[in-house]
Amino acid sequence: MKVSETMISTLREVPAEAVIASHQLMLRAGIMRKLGNGLFAYLPFGLRAFRKVENIIREEMDNIGAMEFKQPVVVPGDIWKESGRWETMGPGMLKAVNRVDQELVVSPTAEEAFTAIIRDELSSYKQLPIVAYQINTKYRDEIRPRYGVMRGREFTMKDAYSFHTTQESLDETYEKFAKAYRKVFKRLGLSVIPVRADSGAMGGSGSEEFMVESVIGDDTLILCPKCGYAANTEKAACAPDTPKTIDGTPQKATDKPYNEIATPNVKTIEQLTDFLKTTPQSFIKTLIYHVINSELDLSKAPGCAQLKRVTENGGANPYYPDSFFAVCIRGDLDVNEAKLAALLKASEVELASDTDVERITGAAVGFAGPVKLSTVPVVADETVMAMHDCITGGLKTDVHFEHVEPNRDFTPYITADVRTVVAGDKCPHCGAEFYSKKGNELGHIFKLGYKYTKTMNVTYLDENGKQQIPTMGCYGIGVDRALASIIEEHHDDNGIIWPMSVAPYQVAIIPVKFEGAMKENALAIYEELQKAGIEVLLDDRNERPGVKFKDIDLLGIPVRIVVGDKNLPNVELKCRNSSEMQLVPAKDAAAKAAEIVKAELAKLNG
Amino acid sequence: MKVSETMISTLREVPAEAVIASHQLMLRAGIMRKLGNGLFAYLPFGLRAFRKVENIIREEMDNIGAMEFKQPVVVPGDIWKESGRWETMGPGMLKAVNRVDQELVVSPTAEEAFTAIIRDELSSYKQLPIVAYQINTKYRDEIRPRYGVMRGREFTMKDAYSFHTTQESLDETYEKFAKAYRKVFKRLGLSVIPVRADSGAMGGSGSEEFMVESVIGDDTLILCPKCGYAANTEKAACAPDTPKTIDGTPQKATDKPYNEIATPNVKTIEQLTDFLKTTPQSFIKTLIYHVINSELDLSKAPGCAQLKRVTENGGANPYYPDSFFAVCIRGDLDVNEAKLAALLKASEVELASDTDVERITGAAVGFAGPVKLSTVPVVADETVMAMHDCITGGLKTDVHFEHVEPNRDFTPYITADVRTVVAGDKCPHCGAEFYSKKGNELGHIFKLGYKYTKTMNVTYLDENGKQQIPTMGCYGIGVDRALASIIEEHHDDNGIIWPMSVAPYQVAIIPVKFEGAMKENALAIYEELQKAGIEVLLDDRNERPGVKFKDIDLLGIPVRIVVGDKNLPNVELKCRNSSEMQLVPAKDAAAKAAEIVKAELAKLNG
Repeated sequence: MKVSETMISTLREVPAEAVIASHQLMLRAGIMRKLGNGLFAYLPFGLRAFRKVENIIREEMDNIGAMEFKQPVVVPGDIWKESGRWETMGPGMLKAVNRVDQELVVSPTAEEAFTAIIRDELSSYKQLPIVAYQINTKYRDEIRPRYGVMRGREFTMKDAYSFHTTQESLDETYEKFAKAYRKVFKRLGLSVIPVRADSGAMGGSGSEEFMVESVIGDDTLILCPKCGYAANTEKAACAPDTPKTIDGTPQKATDKPYNEIATPNVKTIEQLTDFLKTTPQSFIKTLIYHVINSELDLSKAPGCAQLKRVTENGGANPYYPDSFFAVCIRGDLDVNEAKLAALLKASEVELASDTDVERITGAAVGFAGPVKLSTVPVVADETVMAMHDCITGGLKTDVHFEHVEPNRDFTPYITADVRTVVAGDKCPHCGAEFYSKKGNELGHIFKLGYKYTKTMNVTYLDENGKQQIPTMGCYGIGVDRALASIIEEHHDDNGIIWPMSVAPYQVAIIPVKFEGAMKENALAIYEELQKAGIEVLLDDRNERPGVKFKDIDLLGIPVRIVVGDKNLPNVELKCRNSSEMQLVPAKDAAAKAAEIVKAELAKLNG
Repeated sequence: MKVSETMISTLREVPAEAVIASHQLMLRAGIMRKLGNGLFAYLPFGLRAFRKVENIIREEMDNIGAMEFKQPVVVPGDIWKESGRWETMGPGMLKAVNRVDQELVVSPTAEEAFTAIIRDELSSYKQLPIVAYQINTKYRDEIRPRYGVMRGREFTMKDAYSFHTTQESLDETYEKFAKAYRKVFKRLGLSVIPVRADSGAMGGSGSEEFMVESVIGDDTLILCPKCGYAANTEKAACAPDTPKTIDGTPQKATDKPYNEIATPNVKTIEQLTDFLKTTPQSFIKTLIYHVINSELDLSKAPGCAQLKRVTENGGANPYYPDSFFAVCIRGDLDVNEAKLAALLKASEVELASDTDVERITGAAVGFAGPVKLSTVPVVADETVMAMHDCITGGLKTDVHFEHVEPNRDFTPYITADVRTVVAGDKCPHCGAEFYSKKGNELGHIFKLGYKYTKTMNVTYLDENGKQQIPTMGCYGIGVDRALASIIEEHHDDNGIIWPMSVAPYQVAIIPVKFEGAMKENALAIYEELQKAGIEVLLDDRNERPGVKFKDIDLLGIPVRIVVGDKNLPNVELKCRNSSEMQLVPAKDAAAKAAEIVKAELAKLNG
């Protein structure tokens, strides 16, 4: 392609709105433009890279036998009601009502659509497994879109869904995806951190996220330097540690019954530990949470008998729009709200309002505790159950309890791991100290199980003619975010440095002036490269050489050939990812460049 | 691809919901499935054909130097307010409000998005012309979706937009599109009827529609058997004909003044012509229309001084949400509402309610007429102004006027062609009698002019550094509808007959049984075809031969090779579009099939 025949829209200035490198460079190199809040248009140059990312993903999906579908982007609200997610997806799902009052959804994801389509196609076990995917537009109403396509509203996602007769079949497909994803990211030139989402060992996990390090990452990753354990903070577990007394000795059980102590105006843990000459590790911190859309069965939970439970969809997936829980954790630790929400099968959890806390605890804020608490169910972090002789709030203003023994003085409704693991905590596998990084999720593979097939009534006949429900997996990759992450990982002060596999053009030819022998030689190299199937950009603009060099560096074309009067019959050949420059005879330049392109591609694809 | 490795979802029964061949066959052959009203999911087999249609369009766009973009599907309402179409697009545009109260649109088309993006990129005349396109999802809220993807809600459209410094530059690009579209439809195997939308000669037209004949067509085409004139009924013009008296002689001007005649209970034209012993051609039919969103300036039109006019967007494109017009036409003819709406720059026109008619005419329904009518502006069809000594309604119940002379007794506010041209009318170019067909629009090219660039303030600096506004063209092709139309044109009782260019697979191999020598030979042919780059489907299912034959015919694969014990070492080779069957040596079958594939492709692409 000649530059004069396409649209190269480079910007010299860094747009004020862009704070991260990929956003800045996607604007400066003319990859995309903002059309609205979180809504972006790809320009011709950028779209080439975008399509290459798509195609690499498509090839690896096809390689594992996944079949490409194309679902509508706008889908009926009905299928979301069937699955129960019409309510639980929250305000990030964009709904619309059409002229004849039908409720529609601009797809944020497509579990429902694929489950509905496969439901109609599926009759026999012989058809399974079915592995289906699409690469299509999605919309999620990010409340504060920023960082360009890294956190936009509309985006393109490769989303795949698999259907199986057995867990073993699901496991097998899941492992194929796990491998294919590694291959995809390698081909894209991306260093990903695969993060198993459960706290268990490396095998048998139900979910894995593929993260890239990013200063503006949505996620915090907990990483072990020794054994390679990697987890999202939302799921990370750590080795248990023995709670200590103020002397540094392990806590010991007490025979003393718990009793009230007056703690006037003692509200924070710091005030309390000062006042009682104790350590935060001896204090059971109790937080009251407002829990939204819990799908647990709370009919027998303390204080929950009167709670409103919504049983839409003929009783499948009933949920409590609003419930409250007391959450206890060791005083030096923090509750992880993502773990808590997952535990309670809730769409969201938030700290209860002061009014709710006062109503539930019967005391001012600051005096909640698990002992004798009967108005809400108690969730105790595992650390709490290892504590002895502790302090808790006394459910009266200005009162605490001392000598509290968990198990003896209170029994939680649920005991679980809801602790926020941080750098410095110990790896549960090898005991090494964790470190931590911010990361962004590029991909996710997940064993869904029967969640959708059950609620949406998908069945097949097994070998004995008996009706069965298939189990499901789902597998996503964000295309736009992958593209932005490639730029985050591959750039310098002068611009983008595309990996060969996704470069919009592989070779750029810059004649110092597009005239005379320079033009002639440039065109000859251009034609030879085109014949060799190399994607080549010829900068035939009537611009100063400095402008053209700056542009081509900014655009990030991997191989650059400069044709100048001074050097002819030689030309300069330089790779964008190296400062080395070599003079080669003009007649060999195309062959040499093609060789570099092929070697780089082989390295990424190999 | 082996059938066992993909998903072939054929249906024996014709689904009750489908009434046209393409809809029936797209369901029966597993091209697509309905997910919701007017919302369809493409299955793997069908998606291959869909992508081929897309790619043929893409190639021809690239061939004329159009640059591919990718706009978001969901776009901000703001840009639609800028252009003025937020209100005028009507209820077919799907709007949504997001969680932070921003108004969004699921794109029904993308003039606004492209104009907004190009506005920001454009600074100098040197950048022009810009020719941009995308192939992307669109949504229009069809009120009664039916006929499958032929009249769905969500669809994929190739939409292109061009920006120019001069009319000549626009004309040049427009002609490139006109040629490229012909090439696209030829490659798709589609017989299209190009319909110039204005009534003028073949050159210099501002718009052209590419139609396919269809019994369920949205449009009526008016066609000349002699000179090739083709027009949509919404635009078709015909040669003027001389209005006659009841004797068959031409009407003559009268000197008599018009006068009232009593016509008690005479309401229809038939009653009137009986009663007055005259012909419908002597009667001026007057209809009162309710006109929605007219962008005409009616400030000086009769009866319009008090009309509410909306001037959003700083005064650009002001419009009247509601206005009324009297429309006069010769009694034997019908008003074409599309022509009328275009004339009045309105989004819609509809017959006024009886109440409105009575208020406007001061009489019962049936007695409207242009003489002395001052409450609304009068639109007269050109046929009316050629009439003499006519009858009109008298603006009083049970009263008509006779001896009315147009021009003498009334002067229309507008005189124009608003007549519905029908089969039997005469061609304005050669005088031959028109015939008529129903058709569906597959593509449309259109010289937009300054409509969007003016309202959305797009400018560039010309050679003299002076600010100028570019002129625009737009060019669309419906991908889904093209696919369905291919099936409409290429099928028989047994199923689809794909043109080679869009066939999901080019060759199918059917071993009578997938075992022994049949399996061996089938696999050898399969591998040879794959090596030759032919897209080949091997039916390796354990099904009866009859089932496989029926399926492969239904699927419409162009070349079929049957490998049976009886014929080996020969195999049967048959083309889907012919009943001829030939025996060829198994070892030559692949070469022979590849030859047919290449010849067919060359024919379509040539």
